[in-house]
Order: sequence, then C-alpha cells, then structure tokens
Amino acid sequence: MTAREFRRRGKEVVDWIADYYEKVESFPVMSRAKTGQIRASLPEHPPHRGETFGAMLRDVEKLILPGITHWQSPNFFGFFPSNTSFPSILGEMLSSGLGVQGMLWATSPACTELETLVLDWLVEMLDLPQKFLSTSKGGGVIQDTASNSSLCALLAARERATQYASNERGCNGKLVAYTSAQAHSSIEKGAKIAGIGRANLRLIGVDEKFAMRPEALAAQVERDVAAGLIPFFVCATVGTTSSNAMDPLRPIAKICAERRIWLHVDAAMSGTAALCQEFRWIHDALTAADSYCFNPHKWMFTNFDCDCFFVANRTELIQTMSVLPEYLRNKATESGAVLDYRDWHVQLGRRFRSLKLWFVIRHYGVEGLQHHIRRHVQLAQEFASWVQADKDFELAAPVPLNLVCFRHRGGDDINQQILDRLNQSGKMYLTHTRLNDKLVLRMSIGQTNTELHHVEQAWNHIRKAARQLNNS
Amino acid sequence: MTAREFRRRGKEVVDWIADYYEKVESFPVMSRAKTGQIRASLPEHPPHRGETFGAMLRDVEKLILPGITHWQSPNFFGFFPSNTSFPSILGEMLSSGLGVQGMLWATSPACTELETLVLDWLVEMLDLPQKFLSTSKGGGVIQDTASNSSLCALLAARERATQYASNERGCNGKLVAYTSAQAHSSIEKGAKIAGIGRANLRLIGVDEKFAMRPEALAAQVERDVAAGLIPFFVCATVGTTSSNAMDPLRPIAKICAERRIWLHVDAAMSGTAALCQEFRWIHDALTAADSYCFNPHKWMFTNFDCDCFFVANRTELIQTMSVLPEYLRNKATESGAVLDYRDWHVQLGRRFRSLKLWFVIRHYGVEGLQHHIRRHVQLAQEFASWVQADKDFELAAPVPLNLVCFRHRGGDDINQQILDRLNQSGKMYLTHTRLNDKLVLRMSIGQTNTELHHVEQAWNHIRKAARQLNNS
Repeated sequence: MTAREFRRRGKEVVDWIADYYEKVESFPVMSRAKTGQIRASLPEHPPHRGETFGAMLRDVEKLILPGITHWQSPNFFGFFPSNTSFPSILGEMLSSGLGVQGMLWATSPACTELETLVLDWLVEMLDLPQKFLSTSKGGGVIQDTASNSSLCALLAARERATQYASNERGCNGKLVAYTSAQAHSSIEKGAKIAGIGRANLRLIGVDEKFAMRPEALAAQVERDVAAGLIPFFVCATVGTTSSNAMDPLRPIAKICAERRIWLHVDAAMSGTAALCQEFRWIHDALTAADSYCFNPHKWMFTNFDCDCFFVANRTELIQTMSVLPEYLRNKATESGAVLDYRDWHVQLGRRFRSLKLWFVIRHYGVEGLQHHIRRHVQLAQEFASWVQADKDFELAAPVPLNLVCFRHRGGDDINQQILDRLNQSGKMYLTHTRLNDKLVLRMSIGQTNTELHHVEQAWNHIRKAARQLNNS
Repeated sequence: MTAREFRRRGKEVVDWIADYYEKVESFPVMSRAKTGQIRASLPEHPPHRGETFGAMLRDVEKLILPGITHWQSPNFFGFFPSNTSFPSILGEMLSSGLGVQGMLWATSPACTELETLVLDWLVEMLDLPQKFLSTSKGGGVIQDTASNSSLCALLAARERATQYASNERGCNGKLVAYTSAQAHSSIEKGAKIAGIGRANLRLIGVDEKFAMRPEALAAQVERDVAAGLIPFFVCATVGTTSSNAMDPLRPIAKICAERRIWLHVDAAMSGTAALCQEFRWIHDALTAADSYCFNPHKWMFTNFDCDCFFVANRTELIQTMSVLPEYLRNKATESGAVLDYRDWHVQLGRRFRSLKLWFVIRHYGVEGLQHHIRRHVQLAQEFASWVQADKDFELAAPVPLNLVCFRHRGGDDINQQILDRLNQSGKMYLTHTRLNDKLVLRMSIGQTNTELHHVEQAWNHIRKAARQLNNS
C-alpha cells in the first residue's frame, strides 16, 4: 500500500470511526452473536492473493460488527468502564504510525522521557505521594493492565523479602501474601505465577462494607509469624471490582510498617477519582504504600491498554526485573543517567503508550477531566437515590463513587431474569456479582458519552423489566 | 471533541503519518537527543485547561520527533525488525475506535473468534503442527511479546510437572529448566518470575554455530535427575537474538520426550520465514513441541504488539492460568463451548489485536508475504557475500536467514568505532553483540521498505567508515 493509498484509506477509516460513534446507540449493546457464528461467516483458509482494503472494511461492517459488544456505547453499564475518547484514539494512531520501540531509553528517548514526564504529571494530578515521582527515588511506568502491575509489585516484594534469593534459587514456600476476600482475581493469579502458591495467599475477611478487616489482617499476620512463615506482601484495594469497596489503608499500612511488609495499593478503576479534591479521601495514608496502580484505560478516557504503576523505590523493582544481555548494552544505560523501562515489567518490547495519555490530559486539561469524573459520580449517586426510593429495589453495598450495586427485593431468580431481559433487549448492558451470597446487579457509570438521560432510561428499563416479570 | 472535529483531526493525523513515511529517510535514523532533552522541552506541570489538538500535533512534530529513533526507516538495521505496514496501522485504528474488551468470549464474540480463526490460518500458513489448531486440542492466542509467551509456557510446564501443586503451594526448588547460553534474556527473566530461580535454569553450551549442543543438554538432564531434581522445561530457540542460531529441534525433542519435559520453541523473529516452503527446515521436528511462539510484530508487517503463542494442549494452559471470580461468570463460559482468552495469559483485559493481523494477511495474501520475506533473506545473503569478498571484513556466524553477523578484522576497537560513527552519522543504524568474546556488528534486514539500494548504501557507509578509521 502506497502512502497515497494510505491517505485515502486512512480517511475512510477515520470517517468509519466517527460514523460508528454517531450511530453506536442504534446497535444492541450486547452482541447477539451465537457461538461460532462470526467464525463461520469468515473464510476457513487464508487468501493466497492480496485483497482490496475496501473488501476488508466492508467485512468489518457486515461480519465483525454483529460480534461486537459495544463497550463505547453510553448504554454500557457492565463490568467497569473501559472508556476512550477521540484525542486518545488520535494518540494511538500516531503511536502506530511511528512504530517505535521503547524498551530502552536509547531505542527512542522521547518514548521514555514523555512517559516519565506524564507519570510525574499524574502524581501531581492525583496528589499521589511525592516518593512516586521519578525525580525522587521512585517513579511510574505504563503497564498493560493492573494484573501485570500487581504481579510486578508481588515480585519486587518477594525479592526484597528474600534479599533477591528467590530470583536466584526459586521460592522456598515460606512467603505469605495477603489481600481481601473481595480483591481482584489477578492477585490470586499473581501469587500462582510468582511461585508463592494460592494456599500462601491469605484472603482476609471483610466488613459489612466489603472492605478488608484490618484486625483480621493483623491476627493472620501474627499467626503466620508464629508458624515460622514470612509475611511479605499485602495488596489493599481502593475500589474492589465486585462492589467498589475501599480497604482502609491507614490501619493496613500500620500493620505493614510494623512487619516491613510490602504494601501494594490496587486502585485500578477508582484511582481516577482522585483527580477531584473531594474524592481524595480514597488515598488516605497512601504515603505508606510501596507501590500503587490505577488504569487510565478504565475511567480516564484513554483507550486500552494503559495502566499506570508507581513504585516508591525504583531500585527494588529494577533489581527484581533486570537481565542485561550483551545485545541490549549501550552507553546511555551504562551511564546510569537514564531509565530503561524494560526493567520495570515482564515484557521487553514496548509501545509508545504515553502519547495517548498525554493527548488526553492536554485535550481535557485537569479541569475537564475533573468535570467528567464529577459528572459520573453524580449520575451514580442519583441512580442510587432512585433505587433507595423504590420499594421493590434495594442497595446491596455502599456507593462511594460511580458503581451502584443493587437488587430487586424479590430474590436471585428475578434479579437474574431482569439481567437477562435487559441484556437481551440490546437497550443497555449490565453485569452482576454476588454479595452476602445474593445475586446483585451492578450499574457501573463511566462511559465517556453517558449522560443523565441514558441513566434515566436505564432505570426505566430496569423497573419496567421488573414489573413485567412480576406480572407474568 | 465532537465526531465532526475528530473527522477533521483524524484526517490530519492520517496525512501526518503518510508524510512521515514519505520523509522518514531524511531524519537521522538514531535520535540525537541528549539525556533529558525531550523532557526539558515540555512543560513540567499538566495543563489546567484543555489545549487545542493543533498545538499537540505541532509538539509531536517539533518536540517529540527529535527524540525518535526511526524503527520504520528502511535504513534501520538494528536489533531485530519491528516492522509495520499501512494495512496494519489501519487495523489498529479500527481496534482503537471500537475500544472493545476481549477478556471473555462473551465480552465481544468477534474479538475472540477472529483471533482464533487468524491463528488457525497461521498454522496453515507456516505449516505448523496440526495439534496447534483450535479445532484440535491446542490453539493459538495473541500475546504482547515473546517474553510473556515464554513465561506462560514455563508456567504451564511447571504446573504439569507438579500436577498443579506449585500453583497451590508454591515452588519447591526442585524444578530445573534448560535453554541455551544464547537464548533470549526473557527465559532467565521468566525463570525468576515463575519462582524457579536463575540457578535452576541451566544455560546449555553451544556449538560453533551458536546452537544448543543436544549432547550437553542430555548430559545435564541426567546429572540433574541423578541429583534428585526434576527437569521440566526446555526452551529451544529458532533464530537466537544475538546471531540467529538455530537450535537443533530433533535431538532436543527426543531428550524431552524421554523425560516428559515440556518443549517450548521460541521463534520470535525467524518463525515468519516458514511462510516460505524453502525455509521450513527451521521447524524440523516442531511436531514434538508443547508450545511455540513467533512475533508478527517483528518481521511480518504487523505493528507492535502482536506475538502469536500456540499450545498443543490448551487444557494444560487454561488450568494453569484460570481464576474465575463471580463477576466474570457467564453462560457462554459455563457452556464450555467458547474460548475465554483471559485464561491464556497473565493479563485479564485485552485489545482486539487480531484485526490488524487479519488486515495484514488479507492485504498481502500469503503470496505477497512470501515475496517480501524472500526479498529480505536474499538481501541479507547478498550482504553476506559482500562481507565474505572483502579482505577487511569477515562473517562472525552463519547467515541462515536475514541477520548478518560480521566484523572488521581489525579487532574490537575498530568495530566499536565503526558502529559509533555509523550510528552518529544518522544515515543508518546498526547494533552489536559479542560472539566468541569478540565484538560483532549485526546487520538485521527486515524493515518493510528496505530495498537493495538501502543495503548497498549501508555497505558503502560501513566500508567508508572502516577506511577513514584505518587512515586516521
């Protein structure tokens, strides 16, 4: 494809994307594709000869779109938001076009330096501890997901606890990690990957708000120490996936400090709220954390993937992850004056992901981002008030920010039927969880283009579905 | 930003990218940025108010470009290729625009089904073992990098060897892994991450071609078994990073089969060569492998990130990686009729990466891809013949495909000076390695737009630099 053809085709794709956003509300939010349907619509074998781009774009429209669940629809209220914005898409286009590798500072200085700068900006924007600044002893890096950030935190904690012996000789079965029973599944996955073992990850009980009980953590740590084990890692969650519960960082941090346990704080979705002064209470006592992550690709209008991972002491992370073969040696690295981000995560190669984040921050400005986050929280609070005012429904958990966990009072069956009916209608999309062993509906508000009328309409659909089911 | 403004700005970005490719040869290939220069050119604090897109694009041009090392230049011969193509960029644009999550089949069926299909296509295109087909017991998945594929292979091997006990109770220090002393650094990184330990990764010696010596592997395995240890994983490399050495898969596979050791084959760069019948010898005996990976984001015109990871038995991988919290439960998953790719790697969230790969395969067709791969190999072979015919230079390793390791006969100092002079000239970019304790220059040919005249010109620059240094 010549540059000339790319100009033409690229502009068609830009229009296709703009059209998509203009008509996204006309599609059923949840794909109605049957198992195997999309694959069956496509040729079983690769083409021997090249095809035209026109044919490819038509197939996207005709064959792929029916298999898409529209995460960017303003009527998408499932899981967590994975929102994006036009400036972010433009940043991603440039990143694809430049096609640079940022594994070392030397392989494209701008890729490293812009990332470091933008992550320092975020420390300021979220009022994170100063120790997370690259100009201090710490620093931030973009990872793909919070799963990988948590894994890196776990690994650095493991090495600090064993004085780098587990990197050298493997794990010894003595290390014990802690998180709440409501923490994200990636913590268990990380404990398995890192050779710690699921049985050595203690899932600490939660209180009535589904937040970690610090006294239960303290008691378990003491039991483990008494048994000759080594507590080395606590993951506290600021906004659990299931119900947006906030683990109390202050007492947890105190326990960690006493035993020199690495404290990692996973704020994947909710961290973005700290853009606004009034929500900064979620980070109370964060100054005690060894590491922290949040995902602009969830709630900060930046397309996936973009998780920001911060450490208080970058040397610990780098010592854990670094392997330096001859073919990557270079003068800049040896000078010690640069950061080589390959030593900050599992992967070696890396994309120029800070471009899109930089574009988002510059496009909205801090003020604009605050405006949208406040708007989402307000919409969720209004929705919660409607639930509370309705005799058939109840809240199933506190609503600190933008996630509303609620249920019909009629029991699990009707809640499941409401969920199925709404999702099959194509008019909106919700997902569920279980809290106190009851099925709970989750209304997650954070899509870029979700407005009051979408939330009102969703509430009408929910009530209507409940009424129809009650009458049937 | 409205859809209307996105149409305008998006088209500007498309033109910017097209312009970039049209003038890429006018930039110094290696960025001349000094440490800290890019950061110092940017505001230290985030903007409070939003800025115009025009300002952002101007800054990319003026402030970011000087910090770019141009991986997409046809004069880039460093490291390995990380090539891309216009159809791939267009696929990535659509993927950004759609902004879907493919963690579960249910979260966007097309994202999973297209990926499965395209990876099945690749089994056919590269003539990989049938067991890697999703329609068999195995299957393929897109990962970010070969580092993560190798880690997943190591983890699945670890669990198979311990009957899932290490996932449960952590590692026991008895497991031993093997790879060659020339294998990629990610294997050592993976052994550390997975709790195996660097000391339990045996770096097997290599022959005069820098390929693993199978008799050394066999002897080490026997020593370890005799010592009560458990050999569980071998990573063989098809095309090492340093010199493109090919580990002999057939005798290695025989050793693995005897001891039921997991055999992973890392063909990150070179795997693409198997598109062409005449290079399929690189995969001799691959039918014995438990897992395999190669990176379309290196040599197959697909922009980063896109590594394809195949397993012979997907159940082993899924059992290793799966954690199923309530909020991810859904009917499709429980039916067992679908693949949920979140269980195939570390991360949970995932982008719609198969779109770009599908576009590349359809745009070029198998024939077109073969044409370009043959062309790159031929250019490298010609370059190698020029080196051999020159009395001042020598080849430092065999040249099976598209990487030429060579050196000036005058010793390490002059080779280092040649390298520095060429890279500082901005006219081309080369990197180095060490082989037999000598500094070696690496001429890696695989950029999408590299033609004969670029390679001829590079050789002229190299000889000229050598002559000038000899005369000074």
